[in-house]
Amino acid sequence: MDQVRDVSGKWKNDLGSVMELKEDGTGKISGTYTTAAEFFMSNEPGEAADLVGYIKNHTDKEIGIPTTTITFCMAWKIEGSCSAFTGQIFPGENNEQPVIKTTWLLHSPVDGLQHNWASTRVGENTFYKIQTHQEDSQG
Amino acid sequence: MDQVRDVSGKWKNDLGSVMELKEDGTGKISGTYTTAAEFFMSNEPGEAADLVGYIKNHTDKEIGIPTTTITFCMAWKIEGSCSAFTGQIFPGENNEQPVIKTTWLLHSPVDGLQHNWASTRVGENTFYKIQTHQEDSQG
Amino acid sequence: MDQVRDVSGKWKNDLGSVMELKEDGTGKISGTYTTAAEFFMSNEPGEAADLVGYIKNHTDKEIGIPTTTITFCMAWKIEGSCSAFTGQIFPGENNEQPVIKTTWLLHSPVDGLQHNWASTRVGENTFYKIQTHQEDSQG
Amino acid sequence: MDQVRDVSGKWKNDLGSVMELKEDGTGKISGTYTTAAEFFMSNEPGEAADLVGYIKNHTDKEIGIPTTTITFCMAWKIEGSCSAFTGQIFPGENNEQPVIKTTWLLHSPVDGLQHNWASTRVGENTFYKIQTHQEDSQG
Repeated sequence: MDQVRDVSGKWKNDLGSVMELKEDGTGKISGTYTTAAEFFMSNEPGEAADLVGYIKNHTDKEIGIPTTTITFCMAWKIEGSCSAFTGQIFPGENNEQPVIKTTWLLHSPVDGLQHNWASTRVGENTFYKIQTHQEDSQG
Repeated sequence: MDQVRDVSGKWKNDLGSVMELKEDGTGKISGTYTTAAEFFMSNEPGEAADLVGYIKNHTDKEIGIPTTTITFCMAWKIEGSCSAFTGQIFPGENNEQPVIKTTWLLHSPVDGLQHNWASTRVGENTFYKIQTHQEDSQG
Repeated sequence: MDQVRDVSGKWKNDLGSVMELKEDGTGKISGTYTTAAEFFMSNEPGEAADLVGYIKNHTDKEIGIPTTTITFCMAWKIEGSCSAFTGQIFPGENNEQPVIKTTWLLHSPVDGLQHNWASTRVGENTFYKIQTHQEDSQG
Repeated sequence: MDQVRDVSGKWKNDLGSVMELKEDGTGKISGTYTTAAEFFMSNEPGEAADLVGYIKNHTDKEIGIPTTTITFCMAWKIEGSCSAFTGQIFPGENNEQPVIKTTWLLHSPVDGLQHNWASTRVGENTFYKIQTHQEDSQG
């Protein structure tokens, strides 16, 4: 199986947030995202949210090698905010697990158009594949 | 019905891109996005892509008024890139149609981790509800 | 005088913020930025800050026409935050004044690395040249 | 001297880019930035650019500890683009050197307003203090 493009499974980022992704064979993904981020305002660490999105396999003429981009998004119950991620899955170097490099936006609700300028945070996260026992025995 | 939160229907942005959204009653949205953006590299104007995402209705104690945030994402066939949007639906002033203010990310595929720093564009788009005849007769 | 590249003078954005720019003839700019943005947390509307930055005139072989990009940044006294802008100056259509289209980042201080993910906001602003009487009489 | 707030000196990021900063005692910074980023379009690795900006020391009532935010920006000769950074200086843990966590924007020139949507890239960089012999002997 092409390790690079196999997005299904559990992934963990530097902050300790964990997402479980399932790809349906057509590029559509679904899953859950459990945040570990301590937010000093309102969304609680440990909150889990459903996510939906896509992966896209592609071989560009200029780039010449197969690439897999990814996007997914979710809504947060406690704060009423929404997050969206875009990124790319890179094969691990030296037989390491692949990583997903992402950039995200977080829109927190504001009370009117005049405050919308302050609504949106931006950041990056790198996710690492969590090796499970089942995958170990298969590999 | 609360006009603000009714996201279903056609929306058009300043660049002429059109999206058709359908909300399933539980906050999950699906639809299509037809871009009018002329891209000087690869993705063609007129390309349509399926989208998935969420809206989130919320009444924050601090803000005190109901808010509706939105997020959605899609994959682009021609370029192999992915886009993701977050934003908020604001009621139109003076009986005008509501607007969706969004911020987006566009990740274009790169050939390796060392080029990933240049992968991601950011921007804003405002979407306006396209009034249809059926809605006119109902209103 | 090349209208496009003349960045010196007063500029106002959609939120009512005003900046006064002075270019020193070598591409280095300085000035003041007076924000009108109502921030629901801490930085006050009306706060003024010094800014520094650059403009860059360029004629790209692919693009074929002269372009002027701009960047500037400032620190905010009340909140201890910093803002930075990048953008481009576009000539006004139909003899209108030029506009500066910008994207900005705002970093608000956080108490440690574990909260840095939430530190940075992103947005866009369009600035319009404020015509002064002196410029009228010269034109 | 407060190690955290001492921004003067050489800093290097994960991509190998090096910046040399000098703070003038009033919070204004100047220096040079030598990029190591391989750009597949036009700006060359090794290009050096002057930078200007600010640091801002602050003690917020809510946060309770002193913080130092930073912003700086530069123009690129080869591509005609501009970059701007915002971020914060964090003290190193366990007597390590401090780090500067930054988020940046890169605006590449476009030929008109209709292409401005694609002008701006966003990303993050972490900078590490390069220890010099002189500093070693002082410490």
